[in-house]
Amino acid sequence: MGNTNMTMQLSLFLLKFSSFLLWRECQGVPPPKMTTEWRSVRLYPIPSIIYLIHNNVQFATLTYVDTSTYQIMGNLKIVTTGILFRLFLKKKLSNLQWMAIVLLAVGTTTSQVKGCGEASCDSLFSFPIQGYMLGILSACLSALAGVYTEFLMKKNNDSLYWQNVQLYTFGAIFNMARLVLDDFRGGFEKGPWWQRLLNGYSITTWLVVLNLGSTGLLVSWLMKYADNIVKVYSTSMAMLLTMVLSIFLFTFKPTLQLFLGIIICMLSLHMYFAPASMLVDLPLTAKATPENLVEVSVDRRTDS
Amino acid sequence: MGNTNMTMQLSLFLLKFSSFLLWRECQGVPPPKMTTEWRSVRLYPIPSIIYLIHNNVQFATLTYVDTSTYQIMGNLKIVTTGILFRLFLKKKLSNLQWMAIVLLAVGTTTSQVKGCGEASCDSLFSFPIQGYMLGILSACLSALAGVYTEFLMKKNNDSLYWQNVQLYTFGAIFNMARLVLDDFRGGFEKGPWWQRLLNGYSITTWLVVLNLGSTGLLVSWLMKYADNIVKVYSTSMAMLLTMVLSIFLFTFKPTLQLFLGIIICMLSLHMYFAPASMLVDLPLTAKATPENLVEVSVDRRTDS
Repeated sequence: MGNTNMTMQLSLFLLKFSSFLLWRECQGVPPPKMTTEWRSVRLYPIPSIIYLIHNNVQFATLTYVDTSTYQIMGNLKIVTTGILFRLFLKKKLSNLQWMAIVLLAVGTTTSQVKGCGEASCDSLFSFPIQGYMLGILSACLSALAGVYTEFLMKKNNDSLYWQNVQLYTFGAIFNMARLVLDDFRGGFEKGPWWQRLLNGYSITTWLVVLNLGSTGLLVSWLMKYADNIVKVYSTSMAMLLTMVLSIFLFTFKPTLQLFLGIIICMLSLHMYFAPASMLVDLPLTAKATPENLVEVSVDRRTDS
Repeated sequence: MGNTNMTMQLSLFLLKFSSFLLWRECQGVPPPKMTTEWRSVRLYPIPSIIYLIHNNVQFATLTYVDTSTYQIMGNLKIVTTGILFRLFLKKKLSNLQWMAIVLLAVGTTTSQVKGCGEASCDSLFSFPIQGYMLGILSACLSALAGVYTEFLMKKNNDSLYWQNVQLYTFGAIFNMARLVLDDFRGGFEKGPWWQRLLNGYSITTWLVVLNLGSTGLLVSWLMKYADNIVKVYSTSMAMLLTMVLSIFLFTFKPTLQLFLGIIICMLSLHMYFAPASMLVDLPLTAKATPENLVEVSVDRRTDS
């Protein structure tokens, strides 16, 4: 069972599920808002196209660097997401929030630093420069897809399910195109793709599809009602939680770097989301409440 | 040449140098301010006593844990200094500054995480609990000595050199007491300590004494005119700088964790010392400048 096959199943699952939710919403009052003009619909294939390019760049990167270096470079995505979020969605971030984003990337990287005596221990800096350039490109493309999806979801107040149906329809079409292309390349030796769609599927595989599918729907929801930065934080926290749970479930050895990474990410989370008044002691002028202003105006009046 | 012998040389060097500076200051106009009453002088042996206890605790800790674990635990000193600085010197820190202090400790620790394939690779969490308790005690004592010295130096506006002379006189006395004690324990087999004071001294040794001596004087200066937190930051930055220089001078292999540690410490530095207005976008009321106030009062006048 190829990876493309799994992605196809995933697209179809998401498409079917979103269509069902949309159909249910259509029964209700008021009916969901759905923009069906081409000018809007034509924007929905773009995330799929970006992911397609991203997949190829990812593949190319892995011909230059090893998987663990690729994983470490993946943390750059946090920073590129912040940058594109600022540039394309015009969201202003305070200096402290920028620092928090860099810190989150540093924190997740710290937790992934190779421990003592681990098997694969190539130096991180020993690969050809092309590998690093492609890794950066990969991080940019991944961030671009996220930021673009957020733009799409927030562009109008269409029903979330209608937006999902559009996204996953194009996703399924692109996947299908790829499967057909693979068939042509392989000369139809194994028969057309739709005959192999369910090859090698077990309960576990379906559970994986179900899991990835729910994650996909949650991400759409996050993109519409929260933003890319919230997504980046939740992904990072999920990664750390998985590492901590692995200690108990799979007797994964706890490392100092995991512990440090968790502290860094927690501090970053607090720095990004806590209100400014909770973090710094505001200077005196900051405490100018309406009452103070009235006092001042009274003073001035007696002066004149 | 024992370590105590070196410390003795260092105390004597500092005492002589500070006395010379004090003598020079006494020639000038106005003469330096010197409080000579016992009520003040009796406070100066306390740092030496704390260091004496600290040395013994350090020795005891190293019977339980290895040196690299001890070094890692040494970073706790940054956090304990922050806590004692707050408690004893009554300096208020904002939440962000607390976070910066924790981050500095995390950053220096990150840079010291054992890399791949290093020789000594015992797990950090495999020592008896006593080792960790003593490590924490050691961090507290070290912080206490620093905070107490700052209190001494800032207590009155006595001449810095007079304060140094008092500190180092007691330092020399305590060192001497220890040397005498060692002599008694060893049954004077190697003769009295003053006959061995210059044993094994080379140019390099003198350069080390000179270096440590200047550091000592700079630290006194920092304690009087800056504070313990500034000292903690400068020590950490010096450590990182040393590690970076080692890459060039001794072909020390650069590690990912050193790079991450440097980023973390730089962010921490900025978080601690940058003015709040540079870090966060202050809420609207915070921008009430005098001009705004005048406008408000004009508005109010036209209202009435």
